[in-house]
Amino acid sequence: MIYITRRERFNAAHRLYRNDFSDEKNLEVFGKCSNPNWHGHNYELFVTVKGETNPETGFLVNLKTLSKLIRETVIVKLDHKNINVEVDFMQGKLASTENLAVGIWNEIEEEIRLLGADLHCVKVSESENNSAEYYG
Amino acid sequence: MIYITRRERFNAAHRLYRNDFSDEKNLEVFGKCSNPNWHGHNYELFVTVKGETNPETGFLVNLKTLSKLIRETVIVKLDHKNINVEVDFMQGKLASTENLAVGIWNEIEEEIRLLGADLHCVKVSESENNSAEYYG
Amino acid sequence: MIYITRRERFNAAHRLYRNDFSDEKNLEVFGKCSNPNWHGHNYELFVTVKGETNPETGFLVNLKTLSKLIRETVIVKLDHKNINVEVDFMQGKLASTENLAVGIWNEIEEEIRLLGADLHCVKVSESENNSAEYYG
Amino acid sequence: MIYITRRERFNAAHRLYRNDFSDEKNLEVFGKCSNPNWHGHNYELFVTVKGETNPETGFLVNLKTLSKLIRETVIVKLDHKNINVEVDFMQGKLASTENLAVGIWNEIEEEIRLLGADLHCVKVSESENNSAEYYG
Amino acid sequence: MIYITRRERFNAAHRLYRNDFSDEKNLEVFGKCSNPNWHGHNYELFVTVKGETNPETGFLVNLKTLSKLIRETVIVKLDHKNINVEVDFMQGKLASTENLAVGIWNEIEEEIRLLGADLHCVKVSESENNSAEYYG
Amino acid sequence: MIYITRRERFNAAHRLYRNDFSDEKNLEVFGKCSNPNWHGHNYELFVTVKGETNPETGFLVNLKTLSKLIRETVIVKLDHKNINVEVDFMQGKLASTENLAVGIWNEIEEEIRLLGADLHCVKVSESENNSAEYYG
Repeated sequence: MIYITRRERFNAAHRLYRNDFSDEKNLEVFGKCSNPNWHGHNYELFVTVKGETNPETGFLVNLKTLSKLIRETVIVKLDHKNINVEVDFMQGKLASTENLAVGIWNEIEEEIRLLGADLHCVKVSESENNSAEYYG
Repeated sequence: MIYITRRERFNAAHRLYRNDFSDEKNLEVFGKCSNPNWHGHNYELFVTVKGETNPETGFLVNLKTLSKLIRETVIVKLDHKNINVEVDFMQGKLASTENLAVGIWNEIEEEIRLLGADLHCVKVSESENNSAEYYG
Repeated sequence: MIYITRRERFNAAHRLYRNDFSDEKNLEVFGKCSNPNWHGHNYELFVTVKGETNPETGFLVNLKTLSKLIRETVIVKLDHKNINVEVDFMQGKLASTENLAVGIWNEIEEEIRLLGADLHCVKVSESENNSAEYYG
Repeated sequence: MIYITRRERFNAAHRLYRNDFSDEKNLEVFGKCSNPNWHGHNYELFVTVKGETNPETGFLVNLKTLSKLIRETVIVKLDHKNINVEVDFMQGKLASTENLAVGIWNEIEEEIRLLGADLHCVKVSESENNSAEYYG
Repeated sequence: MIYITRRERFNAAHRLYRNDFSDEKNLEVFGKCSNPNWHGHNYELFVTVKGETNPETGFLVNLKTLSKLIRETVIVKLDHKNINVEVDFMQGKLASTENLAVGIWNEIEEEIRLLGADLHCVKVSESENNSAEYYG
Repeated sequence: MIYITRRERFNAAHRLYRNDFSDEKNLEVFGKCSNPNWHGHNYELFVTVKGETNPETGFLVNLKTLSKLIRETVIVKLDHKNINVEVDFMQGKLASTENLAVGIWNEIEEEIRLLGADLHCVKVSESENNSAEYYG
């Protein structure tokens, strides 16, 4: 069993808030992350997949193929977008790093199986200090 | 003459566009950075000041004082904000990295003189690949 | 189950040595890390907690709350301190990265449970080349 | 149980290709990594070992000893070398990051046991975007 | 006057040696960098250009245009290549970081002028410890 | 004219204080950096030298020679040491980053001239946020 990890990046706007909370309540719960005018991040996405190395190629999965899959499946939806407003798989969810990691997992899990590997971990890093990991 | 540099960080939303351009024209000139729903970055700000070391303290400027000045003068206006909508010194300007560097310079130049040093460089890094520097 | 990680930093002095060893013996076992006049590091501390995401907030734990807990519980005791001389939870222990990781775990484990999450990992990085991890 | 990780680095040339493939087939499968004139990387190697902390020293393993072992066992064979042509434990294998991680594991596993610890993970990072991990 | 910097990366093989030196002499002068079987690096290239910000766009130069220019002019020649054997502008030169910086400067200086900016600095980083800068 | 930069690292303890100040006064002026029990850092030292590339070697200076010079001249005095107590060229000076940069400059300037290059800049980085540069 081998594990490989591909890093991709996306720049996005978001806001942490609930429609059923007042602005004051949102500020109390989510702090400055609730700013109604949005803020944003340079997100880093680390996708780890696992499986057996293919003796024909020496690869678990070709990292170029894995990169292409991640870009076409999720980066295209996230990069230079507003996560709350524009990202289909985040509609109706709080735009937290935790929910992003789970949402990305759900978008790519099946696609990665088609490459002949199993998704092991989706890690989303929001800043040099904060990150979330989901293992399914 | 000695130079010291302090790094501060801010997370903000922005958009590159002109009101007098159509959405198509904005997309043509500014690409995906023109997204009407905003996107955002983890900006890094490097402020370099220069002058003579004070023999009493061994400091050009106390870096804690310099950090406090930068935070109170510009970070508080930029962090978790929308640069186009909420940042007073960027009103009427395109929210480019170049203009941010010049705008921040203008906000802090006098304040740094009051600390007994001269502002040398404002560097704004928008991503690991892109940055702008202004030397006055 | 989701995992989130918060990074905090502290700058501290330390020394690796045993009182019951001569200076020569300490030098033999611990090398230059045994210098009686101390040396120091910019330590990085990565605290990973796990649990269920709260559907009300989208958070496992609010990262600002987690950061505050780590700062008030351990960083305040470690930052700009001498680990051997001043840190209560390291008294009577060798000031190794391994023991620091275990010591920090013991200081924060209960506090994190009170936030509604379980401590998963304490990672202490002493330099870009060396780190220790403890999982309880 | 404690885990410690040591990072070492090596700069090497390699090429991904099969002798039984034509140049066209190699290009199709391995892309520009199949360049017959080689290319290269600054590889980072992270070796994680696990075990009980020795109460005499506060160490699982002295990191200087671990570093020396890794350098003498594998770095000396890899650094400033051609992985395909010169590295004994990679002969007859595709010079992929996956195979490098497994090859390095096999070279150091026994040696680390002699230090009184168990090898936990070999991580090889080929670039800031790509890495492979092997856990035995 | 504003300065902007774009980072690009390339992975390449090279060797430091002179044809008119014996292998022993090459080893003496260039050390392990003279390995006849090549070695390689993940090079980082930082291109800094200077000029006036265009008030129409807020840009000195569109960073996407600058990135495209650098990729099409030099990265395509360097990435996954052998610098000694395959890079036209390095033929007849020692493949040192110094010569790479000067060579890249000569390839892009005119092109950048056509974008309406002046090339200020080419920095080539061979590893986390070594880099060269050329200012024309 | 070409510039090359070599990074070296050292881990050291220090304290910012004046003997002619009371503990209270030291705390007021230098904050927690005045802790009488010391604290420490992982310092990064960037030495930039300039001159003409030697056409015989393609080098301004062999970076291995430059590294050796820096290690033997200053790193050996600083690494795993107490800057206030043990570093000869810092005696009688406040152990600030500014003074360290100037002190290191004075130690290596002549030595670098003997290599056939001119010292251009000594940069000392105390943390990811703070650094000082001296150009003579």
